[in-house]
Amino acid sequence: MPDTWRDIAARKQKQRAERIPKEWLLPSSYSVGSHSDSVLNVPRERGILTKEDLRITESYDATALVGELAAGKLRSVDVVTAYCKRAAIAQQLTNCLTEIFFEDAIARAKELDEHFAKTGQPKGSLHGLPMSLKDCFKVKGYDASVGVAALCFNPATTNSALVELLLEQGAVLYCKTNVPQTMMALDSHNNVFGRTINPANRHLTPGGSSGGEGALVAMRGSPIGIGTDVGGSIRIPAMCNGLVGVKPSHGRVPYAGQEGGMQPGSSRLAIESTAGPIARNVRDCEMLLRAVGNASAWLFDPDVLPQVWEQQAPLHTCLPSVRVKQPLCVGIMRTDGHSTPLPPIQRLMDEVAQILRSSAVPSWSVIDVVDIDITSLGPQCLKTFNGIMSIDGANTWLDHLDKTGEPLSPWLQGRLRRRPQKSLDEVRKLQADKTELQTRFLDVWKESGGYWSTPDSKAKQGNKTLDVIICPVAPHPIPEIDSWNTTNYTSAFNLLDCPSGVLPVRAFRQADAEGELQRSPPLNGWDKINRKLWTDVDRKVYVGTPLSIQVVAPKLMDRKLVEAMAVLEQMLSSPLHTGAEKASKL
Amino acid sequence: MPDTWRDIAARKQKQRAERIPKEWLLPSSYSVGSHSDSVLNVPRERGILTKEDLRITESYDATALVGELAAGKLRSVDVVTAYCKRAAIAQQLTNCLTEIFFEDAIARAKELDEHFAKTGQPKGSLHGLPMSLKDCFKVKGYDASVGVAALCFNPATTNSALVELLLEQGAVLYCKTNVPQTMMALDSHNNVFGRTINPANRHLTPGGSSGGEGALVAMRGSPIGIGTDVGGSIRIPAMCNGLVGVKPSHGRVPYAGQEGGMQPGSSRLAIESTAGPIARNVRDCEMLLRAVGNASAWLFDPDVLPQVWEQQAPLHTCLPSVRVKQPLCVGIMRTDGHSTPLPPIQRLMDEVAQILRSSAVPSWSVIDVVDIDITSLGPQCLKTFNGIMSIDGANTWLDHLDKTGEPLSPWLQGRLRRRPQKSLDEVRKLQADKTELQTRFLDVWKESGGYWSTPDSKAKQGNKTLDVIICPVAPHPIPEIDSWNTTNYTSAFNLLDCPSGVLPVRAFRQADAEGELQRSPPLNGWDKINRKLWTDVDRKVYVGTPLSIQVVAPKLMDRKLVEAMAVLEQMLSSPLHTGAEKASKL
Repeated sequence: MPDTWRDIAARKQKQRAERIPKEWLLPSSYSVGSHSDSVLNVPRERGILTKEDLRITESYDATALVGELAAGKLRSVDVVTAYCKRAAIAQQLTNCLTEIFFEDAIARAKELDEHFAKTGQPKGSLHGLPMSLKDCFKVKGYDASVGVAALCFNPATTNSALVELLLEQGAVLYCKTNVPQTMMALDSHNNVFGRTINPANRHLTPGGSSGGEGALVAMRGSPIGIGTDVGGSIRIPAMCNGLVGVKPSHGRVPYAGQEGGMQPGSSRLAIESTAGPIARNVRDCEMLLRAVGNASAWLFDPDVLPQVWEQQAPLHTCLPSVRVKQPLCVGIMRTDGHSTPLPPIQRLMDEVAQILRSSAVPSWSVIDVVDIDITSLGPQCLKTFNGIMSIDGANTWLDHLDKTGEPLSPWLQGRLRRRPQKSLDEVRKLQADKTELQTRFLDVWKESGGYWSTPDSKAKQGNKTLDVIICPVAPHPIPEIDSWNTTNYTSAFNLLDCPSGVLPVRAFRQADAEGELQRSPPLNGWDKINRKLWTDVDRKVYVGTPLSIQVVAPKLMDRKLVEAMAVLEQMLSSPLHTGAEKASKL
Repeated sequence: MPDTWRDIAARKQKQRAERIPKEWLLPSSYSVGSHSDSVLNVPRERGILTKEDLRITESYDATALVGELAAGKLRSVDVVTAYCKRAAIAQQLTNCLTEIFFEDAIARAKELDEHFAKTGQPKGSLHGLPMSLKDCFKVKGYDASVGVAALCFNPATTNSALVELLLEQGAVLYCKTNVPQTMMALDSHNNVFGRTINPANRHLTPGGSSGGEGALVAMRGSPIGIGTDVGGSIRIPAMCNGLVGVKPSHGRVPYAGQEGGMQPGSSRLAIESTAGPIARNVRDCEMLLRAVGNASAWLFDPDVLPQVWEQQAPLHTCLPSVRVKQPLCVGIMRTDGHSTPLPPIQRLMDEVAQILRSSAVPSWSVIDVVDIDITSLGPQCLKTFNGIMSIDGANTWLDHLDKTGEPLSPWLQGRLRRRPQKSLDEVRKLQADKTELQTRFLDVWKESGGYWSTPDSKAKQGNKTLDVIICPVAPHPIPEIDSWNTTNYTSAFNLLDCPSGVLPVRAFRQADAEGELQRSPPLNGWDKINRKLWTDVDRKVYVGTPLSIQVVAPKLMDRKLVEAMAVLEQMLSSPLHTGAEKASKL
């Protein structure tokens, strides 16, 4: 008789627990989700991390670590050990890990240190840097079960393409992180590993599907992690944990060789998911994307473009003829026309627009800010996205669950059920609709395209183009567990294949709880549910949580995206910006 | 009662004939295909072209024309008029045109000349250059019937994306060129416009599906033309007419907005066709691809990558760390493992390998030539290609034909018939197979990948990579009309999405008719038919025809491809190289 999912989950959790050294265990008074509010400071308090461990994990960002390691000022074994300890504590408090391979990591770090001692050279651009990965990546010798019982105890015999690349560049992989069942949910709960908790506030969701990654990085249990995103799965956990996350365009970061739970070839008929960084600041995301871009990534995955980072269009010098600095041109998109943002999100967008209009970064003498209205495209994006994502009716996932009698996760109940597979004609039509929307969206970037509002003047239309669009990540603040609503603010940019990232701006303040909804009837069922996140909730739960914006660039303008995000991070950081810890203390 | 295809074809041919000015008509003793052997010199003999017209059409290549036009040394109206005349003659001799818009072109040329006179500036990088296009491109006000009666007399109301771009860059469009029915045949015959004739030899095919373009450029009726290629449709006519043709990677040249005869979204489920140049030399192809790449092509078509020509990897400086010139590394692929090349093609490959091994271009001090063996991949490429290209069973095309009772073209009879549309699962599987082959093919480029032969030494494997692969365009010389055999030598590189081009090397000599087949049984039915092109043909028909090679680069390395082709063109041009005219005189 085959094992039941409960047996498998119990064995799997036992295996995971045993991979944490005893000396790194917290007292039994600590357990996942048992503490009210933030656990972000616990690693500092319990004495498991030495002073040096704390210095390593708190005084450097990933970029600084890479610099110190490459200069021989830090040893990889010290950095990796510190992060293993902190990840172990994060796991005990938030249940963010799946596979743990601390021993292998420390052994590899020692080898890298020896290599450096012998040659005086780093192994690659990520020499000695500990990195965490979402569970769907395959690392030889370890499961990539993605929290499905039927996929457990089946260690990978190959590395994912990105894993190969990261190892070649000298990164040290030491753990994988939790995901929601099917990776199509927006919390991070599954029956094998259980639920990941938001470390800043246990009542709120940590987001999904890269939710384990979000919680781990927020805990400083990883300097930088890799998530994947087909509808918001990097950006949503970044928002929920006050972090920076970047979803690249398809073709930038190797994605091949992961456990996606789907039949091979499925993504070709739907939307290609992409892999990208979750980190504490923009420069760390840029460092990682540059390292991947410059590592001949196209030799690892046939979908990756042969274009090193320096060959990508930077801000404003995309055309060889343009050598002068132009104003940074930012479009503000306030709504998708499908779910109207709640009052605090509207206020945030107003504030951001005002800061950009009034302030200036020294290197950007002028910033053009224009309001754009894409409400004629937004609802169609969601309709096409939902159609295209349900081509096979989720039946492959449900087959996996049936093998061990596994039930659906709470968030998926009522959302996921067996449906007939779509016909070839329906799929063809959906692909045509996707192309049509991508084509129409090209006009959004152009001053002459018909989507720009010019409320202040009747200036005649010129030929300016937007560098980036700023819009909400969601029409609501970080919601309570299992109550994330629509994904259209993120998934539209998967459908359109625009690179996009999340940037935290400031904490939700007491005053943000004020403000009522407009009296007009809801636009639709999703909008109605969204309003309940304002009317049917004790709004105190939002106070102190990070409020973030999304930044979007044209397709494959990934370098331009992160360069613009760096400018925006600088502009928005003072006086309003606050990181996750700060937020958790408010 | 609806019109029959015969009525429509007659009206369409009448319309076309009336668009040629009377003074450009040849005497009635000339008609399509009535003359034995080459008609390449007829334009020189008949007095329709002035001395200046002849100078314009014979003394400049497209690159030189663009230079003279931009410098104000030639007027567009003179260049365009000369090419209109020569195209009119080409049409009367080879039946290569479909839509003719000489009047519009000459009017536009005058406007461009006025613009230049007024501003002293060219309109764009193609200012004043006459360009021809395959019939599938849409030009406002003219049909894009692709030779199907049901699609005639339905003028386009939009321009294709590439047409918009070319016009913005100052090109002058003056005619469109003939294609085979369904564009899936390898001659260029359809029921509306009839058959295009190879101008060098009326017994041989001009190739397809961009066969009209091939014949027109060979006649010097166009300095450069744009074809499209989903299985060889640029490269095959380039070979058949002794020209250079480049099939880019998907994502380099705008393809959107053409008449493909298929339902929207179809290409997403199959293989993306690409558009590219057919010209007389490599530098003209490079000029065109550079002009498109630097014209913000990504603003015209969402599939085009935002990467200007200079941002593409050049030969050998792809990685920022590599600044020194390395040897040009060329892989010689002698067979696809599915159809063994006939003796003259084998001899050509031997010769090319020997020239590359023995000679050197000044700027390339060393050339590495390695034999590569991909016979383990070749047959699977064909199987997957054939599967993926018949997803909808050609039923949409057959529906078009049925509307007017149109019969199938000779080449398609027995090859094309109604078949059930493939299921979603079959399509998914085919897409997975395509990805698998693309992934395996990544190893072909690498010294360590297992596909390189090192017959001379047991040198240990290093980490060199190939710049380009040289292989046959087909396993046979230019065949007689309607007898082109397999496309695997070209279509494999559509499946793999590798940019690839055709380069003429020398004429087929009397001695090339010698040489017998190996005694082993044919590999399969295709190989058996291929052998008949040697055993069941009077080989004299091949004497004097151009023999060409194909050059292939890794996916999206389009700049590297044409830069390597330029080196090879230089190396192979003396003493063996001969152009189409020379070949026709042998």
